[in-house]
Amino acid sequence: MKLLEERIVKDGQVRPGNILKVDAFLNHQLDVNLLDEIGKEFYRIYKDDGINKILTIEASGIAIACMTARYFNVPVVFAKKAKSRNLDGEVLTSTVHSFTYGKEYDITLAKKFLSPEDKVLILDDFMAVGKAMHGLLDVCQQAGACVGGIGIAIEKGFQSGGDSLRAAGYKLTSLAIIDGMDDDGTIHFRPQEEV
Amino acid sequence: MKLLEERIVKDGQVRPGNILKVDAFLNHQLDVNLLDEIGKEFYRIYKDDGINKILTIEASGIAIACMTARYFNVPVVFAKKAKSRNLDGEVLTSTVHSFTYGKEYDITLAKKFLSPEDKVLILDDFMAVGKAMHGLLDVCQQAGACVGGIGIAIEKGFQSGGDSLRAAGYKLTSLAIIDGMDDDGTIHFRPQEEV
Repeated sequence: MKLLEERIVKDGQVRPGNILKVDAFLNHQLDVNLLDEIGKEFYRIYKDDGINKILTIEASGIAIACMTARYFNVPVVFAKKAKSRNLDGEVLTSTVHSFTYGKEYDITLAKKFLSPEDKVLILDDFMAVGKAMHGLLDVCQQAGACVGGIGIAIEKGFQSGGDSLRAAGYKLTSLAIIDGMDDDGTIHFRPQEEV
Repeated sequence: MKLLEERIVKDGQVRPGNILKVDAFLNHQLDVNLLDEIGKEFYRIYKDDGINKILTIEASGIAIACMTARYFNVPVVFAKKAKSRNLDGEVLTSTVHSFTYGKEYDITLAKKFLSPEDKVLILDDFMAVGKAMHGLLDVCQQAGACVGGIGIAIEKGFQSGGDSLRAAGYKLTSLAIIDGMDDDGTIHFRPQEEV
């Protein structure tokens, strides 16, 4: 998605350790116009796939999920990372070994919000190694929900999470795939054919 | 807001300990159409207040903030609760003593995203005692940012957070104020004049 690639070049910052900071527009400060374009794009790609629910994980996935859900006119459900005193009853849970946070954490989702009747589009802002995504896929499997597609805004192509999911047969779309980042800040995007 | 009050009655659940669960439409599963109506309503109320940024806190505030920001055509910034390996540089920080989570936690916001040039509308899904809101107000004060208004979807009127902010002079709007919840699940809304 050219608009997103251009924004990454303009406002993204490359940091040591293969970190890409996009906090100015994607996951700390949010440009809702850009997010709306992202939502429109995910809708264009997945609108004929029978999606009845958008699934994501807190917190940075929520904005993209909501903007996308507006076009689909379906609910959003987001997996929670922190255990809250308010989370009662039956929950689906999975353990994520996060690269980004350098730690392990559990994700939870109330069982009543995901069922075999659901065909979900899973969305998130970033994919690196793909551990958070595997947690979400695990939760879908536990619920018996079908995964209609996976949509990622920015994939770190050199960290194999996306490639392995594509190889596993998922309809995965990453709007920008970064195959490398140089010390001088140059970002190398993977050329993609328009879907 | 009648639409929200009706939805709370229809899909909200009263639990012991003055807990109101609205997880079916507001803060675990999200009804984006309702959220859009909420955003439209906050815009109607605050559109002449010179707002140039929406401020909220992860995670449940993000959806409301984004939907509202679309109408204002301004960015959203959300305070983070968890320390991430990615959060470098200078941050504003405040400590919140949360009723909902039964614990103390820090919130952080990168300094570059809030400045004396900003006039913010602070939004969140819930207000009980108001500790999270006080954390956000503290962060605004540290940044020198002006608070143009505070918007809350659901206020627990019997937990005084809202009343004390109104008494302090903030332009606070809660779309639904709950003054009591009975054991049989009856919810008592505070009558409000339309602003």
